[in-house]
Amino acid sequence: MNEPFRPAKGCVTAPKGFRAAAVACDIRGHGKKGRLDLAIIASVVPCHAAGTFTTNQIKAAPVKLTRKHLRDRRAQAIVVNSGNANACTGVQGMQDAARMAEETARLLGLKPWEVLVCSTGRIGTPLPMKKVIGGIQEAAARLGDTKFSHSPKAGELAARAITTTDTKPKQVAVQFELDGKEVTIGGICKGAGMIAPGMSESGEPPALHATMLSFLTTDAAVERRTLQECLNRAVAQSFNSVTVDGDMSTNDTVLLLANGIAGNEPLSANHPALPTFQAALNHVTGELARRIARDGEGASKFITVRVTGAASNHDAQIAAHSIANSSLCKTAWYGGDSNWGRILDAVGYSPAKIVEEKADVAYNGEYVFRGGQPAKHSKKLSKILRQREFTVEVNLHLGDGAATVYTCDLTHEYVSINKAKE
Amino acid sequence: MNEPFRPAKGCVTAPKGFRAAAVACDIRGHGKKGRLDLAIIASVVPCHAAGTFTTNQIKAAPVKLTRKHLRDRRAQAIVVNSGNANACTGVQGMQDAARMAEETARLLGLKPWEVLVCSTGRIGTPLPMKKVIGGIQEAAARLGDTKFSHSPKAGELAARAITTTDTKPKQVAVQFELDGKEVTIGGICKGAGMIAPGMSESGEPPALHATMLSFLTTDAAVERRTLQECLNRAVAQSFNSVTVDGDMSTNDTVLLLANGIAGNEPLSANHPALPTFQAALNHVTGELARRIARDGEGASKFITVRVTGAASNHDAQIAAHSIANSSLCKTAWYGGDSNWGRILDAVGYSPAKIVEEKADVAYNGEYVFRGGQPAKHSKKLSKILRQREFTVEVNLHLGDGAATVYTCDLTHEYVSINKAKE
Repeated sequence: MNEPFRPAKGCVTAPKGFRAAAVACDIRGHGKKGRLDLAIIASVVPCHAAGTFTTNQIKAAPVKLTRKHLRDRRAQAIVVNSGNANACTGVQGMQDAARMAEETARLLGLKPWEVLVCSTGRIGTPLPMKKVIGGIQEAAARLGDTKFSHSPKAGELAARAITTTDTKPKQVAVQFELDGKEVTIGGICKGAGMIAPGMSESGEPPALHATMLSFLTTDAAVERRTLQECLNRAVAQSFNSVTVDGDMSTNDTVLLLANGIAGNEPLSANHPALPTFQAALNHVTGELARRIARDGEGASKFITVRVTGAASNHDAQIAAHSIANSSLCKTAWYGGDSNWGRILDAVGYSPAKIVEEKADVAYNGEYVFRGGQPAKHSKKLSKILRQREFTVEVNLHLGDGAATVYTCDLTHEYVSINKAKE
Repeated sequence: MNEPFRPAKGCVTAPKGFRAAAVACDIRGHGKKGRLDLAIIASVVPCHAAGTFTTNQIKAAPVKLTRKHLRDRRAQAIVVNSGNANACTGVQGMQDAARMAEETARLLGLKPWEVLVCSTGRIGTPLPMKKVIGGIQEAAARLGDTKFSHSPKAGELAARAITTTDTKPKQVAVQFELDGKEVTIGGICKGAGMIAPGMSESGEPPALHATMLSFLTTDAAVERRTLQECLNRAVAQSFNSVTVDGDMSTNDTVLLLANGIAGNEPLSANHPALPTFQAALNHVTGELARRIARDGEGASKFITVRVTGAASNHDAQIAAHSIANSSLCKTAWYGGDSNWGRILDAVGYSPAKIVEEKADVAYNGEYVFRGGQPAKHSKKLSKILRQREFTVEVNLHLGDGAATVYTCDLTHEYVSINKAKE
């Protein structure tokens, strides 16, 4: 890549001073311990920390707790479980989330507010706290095996532990130089269904809107407010631009820990190297987000929806999300059918402005509708539509607004996964 | 029923002075004429006429034409085809729609603007006009067989001719007295997919938002402006409260013709009998709308979503539509899973206000979430969820807003129907 950074091995344990541990404690209650379902990610020193959270009005208990713990923009560890979202669980849910932080803090010698908590899984069932506490104790013990817990393998196991209907773990890392110091950003994420994130730092919805969780670590030194601003920008062009099914979760969370061990001059808003850090963070989050869409529940195809020429960027985002969330567009793509009328229909019922006579629609540059008229297209079109990945391009010819959204098709397998009681 | 009206036989030909004819002219191009795909519905005398249309910014050519023809609130005939939506077809599409009106008018001895035009089917393919004109000529000839064309059977064949992925025709009629005169309202509709109507008279979107088409006839005498107001109210509580897949069509149209042959004193806004007419019209449109949801593409279950206690009626509508359009709620219902967390999630990401600690969720009166806590429920719940029909009740306890939306589950069959190239 022609970027100021290069791919690196591993994920959250790739930056210096981060370790991870994952355990299986049967949170799903299947009576066997086989599946990893709890992880701790921790830095050896205190970190600056930033987060973005679901803007769903119904927020899971760990989301409420972690927002509170992040008020001082500092943290040192993350504890996360899969198999149970601890959402809509009332007073008990808040107590359980707090206990997860307390137990992790006690075992790692931290204060409870230095621990961030996440959960993902089914909504509405209380956490099996005996198992969870046992899992935290086992994970904390494993963190003590510092040879393993700092290894790429430990990061990968954490990536596995946070998955639910994902078919594979998702991990990315990049390296680059700041002030002559080698800096690493690593990240993991999960998410395959209930994916239409619309996260913000404050709880105010962004322009638009899984459970998706992502944990990012870096050994760069970054000032706290700047770290949050970098994360806000990165999330806007990555996780908030992915949709699988249009259902925004109660648990969406992205957390970024920066421990400063790389020893660079701390990055602030006007630091000349900030764009380099931002570009690398955008790459890591973008890659992770695209892997969510590629691994969307039941997905057989990965589709990039690119809207240009919109009256505004906001309009472009709305139009792209409307197309990407349309069950009719998604089933047509599954069937390898261009059915571009459904694309125009989806923009037409969105609040984004469209003038039929001006719009163009193309698949990978092959026009199907141009200037208000069906376009004659070549045999290439059916070949494009049979591919595992393609881009839908809509030019509204109304202005300079542009947006890209990543999504997948809607398949029989999506229905099978979601009709099943977990 | 305890209503001031009684069920009647037939549909659009049930009111005095209306006739219908349906023909098969191979609009889908399958090379066989077996499937009915074109119909004319006509009154023997001029009618007052009212209509509501899709608020999608992309409007099919027949929608644009019919809105123009309705400006004087008068009409005498409707010509409609299935198998091709004549949408996104550019200048040619407008010319073709106009020619359908002209040919029908010529054959029936009317002016072109006395004929309303509708189309439904695939978007983006020009109409096969030779076949369409041939079909109109054949249908007009059949209208001349007045014994048959006034019969209930003729109405039923028209109901069949407008279907696309519907598994059955949909027809309703009721009778009642006005000023001692017997009055009849009859109606047909079609719609199974691309169903999330948001129609208005003016093109301004209603509070919320298939192709669905519905044609209503009555022999009542009703003043023109009053007729439109009655239709607006009827559509709000019927077709605009149905969703199958959340995709609002380019072609949604409801038309109501009133020929006055019953001889009642013309109904105006303050006429004491107007509520009787409105109640009957609400019943006919409500029944037709519920049949659309019951016959939704691939549907195995019919679900009524009832939201009460919302901060406003608008909030209640938004919340109910968000639940009814959620792929995750719909697949859970398919699987017979209460998964009420998905219901709260869907309200939470909608713009409708919800406070988790106040909300209740129930299925047919069986609470699953009450006052912010999961509710202990009996064995009745799994029995309810196995039924072919049930009601989801959400009480937000924030105000007096209430709304009801009708929908269906999301099944493997929905995916099969929509991945297939038509």
